Amino acid sequence: MKTFNPFDAASFRTALRAFMDREAIGPAGATLLVAVSGGADSVALAHLLHASGIPIQIAHCNFRLRGEESGRDETFVRNFAAQLNVPFHVRHFDTNEYASAGKLSIQEAARELRYAWLEELRVQTGLDAVATAHHMQDSVETLWMNLSKGTGISGLHGILPKQGALVRPLLFATREDIAGYMMAEQLAFVEDSSNASDKYTRNYFRHHVLPPLREAYPDVVRQTGASIQRFREAEMLYQQAVEGYRKKLVEKKGEEYFIPVLKLKQVRPLATIAYELLKPFGCNTHLAAQAVDLLEAGPGKFVTTATHRIVRDRKWLIVTPLQEALSAHFLIEAGQREVLLPGFRITLREEKYDGRPIPADADVAYLNASELSFPLMIRKWKTGDYCYPLGLNKKKKLSRLFIDQKLSLPEKEKVWVLESDKRIVWVMGMRLDHRFRVTEHTEQILVLKMETTR
Amino acid sequence: MKTFNPFDAASFRTALRAFMDREAIGPAGATLLVAVSGGADSVALAHLLHASGIPIQIAHCNFRLRGEESGRDETFVRNFAAQLNVPFHVRHFDTNEYASAGKLSIQEAARELRYAWLEELRVQTGLDAVATAHHMQDSVETLWMNLSKGTGISGLHGILPKQGALVRPLLFATREDIAGYMMAEQLAFVEDSSNASDKYTRNYFRHHVLPPLREAYPDVVRQTGASIQRFREAEMLYQQAVEGYRKKLVEKKGEEYFIPVLKLKQVRPLATIAYELLKPFGCNTHLAAQAVDLLEAGPGKFVTTATHRIVRDRKWLIVTPLQEALSAHFLIEAGQREVLLPGFRITLREEKYDGRPIPADADVAYLNASELSFPLMIRKWKTGDYCYPLGLNKKKKLSRLFIDQKLSLPEKEKVWVLESDKRIVWVMGMRLDHRFRVTEHTEQILVLKMETTR
Repeated sequence: MKTFNPFDAASFRTALRAFMDREAIGPAGATLLVAVSGGADSVALAHLLHASGIPIQIAHCNFRLRGEESGRDETFVRNFAAQLNVPFHVRHFDTNEYASAGKLSIQEAARELRYAWLEELRVQTGLDAVATAHHMQDSVETLWMNLSKGTGISGLHGILPKQGALVRPLLFATREDIAGYMMAEQLAFVEDSSNASDKYTRNYFRHHVLPPLREAYPDVVRQTGASIQRFREAEMLYQQAVEGYRKKLVEKKGEEYFIPVLKLKQVRPLATIAYELLKPFGCNTHLAAQAVDLLEAGPGKFVTTATHRIVRDRKWLIVTPLQEALSAHFLIEAGQREVLLPGFRITLREEKYDGRPIPADADVAYLNASELSFPLMIRKWKTGDYCYPLGLNKKKKLSRLFIDQKLSLPEKEKVWVLESDKRIVWVMGMRLDHRFRVTEHTEQILVLKMETTR
Repeated sequence: MKTFNPFDAASFRTALRAFMDREAIGPAGATLLVAVSGGADSVALAHLLHASGIPIQIAHCNFRLRGEESGRDETFVRNFAAQLNVPFHVRHFDTNEYASAGKLSIQEAARELRYAWLEELRVQTGLDAVATAHHMQDSVETLWMNLSKGTGISGLHGILPKQGALVRPLLFATREDIAGYMMAEQLAFVEDSSNASDKYTRNYFRHHVLPPLREAYPDVVRQTGASIQRFREAEMLYQQAVEGYRKKLVEKKGEEYFIPVLKLKQVRPLATIAYELLKPFGCNTHLAAQAVDLLEAGPGKFVTTATHRIVRDRKWLIVTPLQEALSAHFLIEAGQREVLLPGFRITLREEKYDGRPIPADADVAYLNASELSFPLMIRKWKTGDYCYPLGLNKKKKLSRLFIDQKLSLPEKEKVWVLESDKRIVWVMGMRLDHRFRVTEHTEQILVLKMETTR
């Protein structure tokens, strides 16, 4: 990015426009749905876009976490939208309830609710993209957090300017730049006290890691921010190299993939290339390393992932979809009281619902019997599965749910689902589906209880 | 790396061997010259290698910075070498003098002296490599420091296991692992108090940045260390992609290189590819961006680097070596009292040396006249130039000297040298050559004074 003077509003807007052009954010005429909490960053974003002649609408989430303060923020944003003369949308959430229903932290719950609603609203209003006010420091913090947890090259691109319908037009600017703009334009904002000081959040970095770093390297955020741009481009070149190897080494025949042993052995760096080629077949770095060991093993040896089996043939590694994963189905007929499955047992009872509160127990499902149609089916989850998680009442991919729950691959491999008429009723041991929940109008309930047998 | 138990010496040594094999450090029969300060890390390294049956010799630098303590450390290492029954080498340095002569920090001075002597000693003793005791945390700190200053993908590989004749066999181990080995083997060591707590050194990271990081991510060093290994492999793939573009886009004809404008315009990511293709011609990211701008400019426009001119032709970017850089030579005849150069003037006077101390002034050179042979020559420095910096009395490349002095590219472009009979006498305005210095035996001195004229 060329430098700009944040205190000169016109210069800031030129920089914004240049960044949006470069990242192909908001093409001419596109209307952006801007998420505004009322804090400095989001107020600056909405004001900047509006003042640059880019059509916007404003969306505000009221998480009802801070009593009157939440109401105050909502009023502030409503008035701000009125001043700009742009449409205003608001949604109230019962964040605490959603968090406890889904066993999520308040932060996770707020995050899920926010993004789900913003996307829903974007589709309803027919707008082009949702814009959030993430800035350079957010992105730098993301990079540091990834590094501290351990990451590969994709952990270095920080927060992306564009992800599907989500855009971040402020990534070129620092917190200080934004503060400069707010001052220059004399813009009011509300103090955002919703950021809990959780050890594992970016707040920890902001308050405990950044200050000593800044002491030694005053320009650390901008320098790391510039590095992130270089890492993004490096990642593109890396991906080009990977795709070259994929084209040369992975051959599809029907449902199977063939990789020549001798040629794979010769590539360098082997570990990373093997990981990238096998990732689509369910390999993490650990499983990919096992697959590399197959190169020195005898024919017939194999590695199994959640979705595929990688078999050492004489000349090839042959990658086959796991038929078992798709074929293990267990039916439950009406009136059946027990099902035995690999590693666990399900007991069932039906009873009249007396209106008592439903206990929160991940291993027991209380279902609205009138919504179910027999036979029910129990099977392993598969890619593409989705449900309407309890409390969210919005479609969500299971793969996405597992990411939120931070499930490891072995944990994911063990997940079973209960289905009724091709609709997922229960991600077993984890999350009920909203459509089958017990409500005050429920008369008859079916209770399923899960117990391990080994 | 597979995990190992640092308290089990055999397991630690197996891990060492595995790491050395993987990184091709110290092939069978090779003897390593191990740098031992007497601190825990270097004692552990020497002991580990010796106990693993790898032939070693021990080298100790006495920087004479801490009075008796320095002598104590030397004695300790000498005794340690005697215990292991391996050859022991020591060199005493006047680090303070070297630092002030070269305008270096004590740390920089010690580093220069150390590596220069170790390499000298390695060549003299005919050994295969110099081994230093850098460990995983050192490498992780290097990565964090690079990130804070701003870096590209090559700043992410941390400390390399192998660089020329220099090897680091302990990079797979953490400080804690090494402490475990020292305890298990009941090894003594001396406390290394020579690490000044400079804000810009790794000590700052160790004491002020790492502790809060470790608080939130106890495993941060090992996780970042594992990431470094992945980044190294990612960098290899990145380089492969770059070399593919170089082969496709850069064509050599005589002394010139041709890059097709239309094809270069189409590559993605353009900024990074252009930077990598033009780096060998003296481009930094800034100059490379200017060269990218040439793609949209009219024929005849050009960008000049320290070594080349990149000219926009109708269909090509043509890269031509700067003839000027090589041809600008100014001769000084015996008795000449003044030379005018682009931007500055040199005045000369000859006088009898009366034994007074030589003032330290970078813009004035006091030379031993009897070592000079006229005509002297003044020219721009060029790649491959070397001198014997005052105080070091050892050959050193100018490019290396500039790195130590942290010269920017524009600063480097402005460096002139004074030559006598093809030997560099003075890196002008920066450093005298040891061979032409004034000593107590000097009778006649030539004084050159540099003054800017614009």
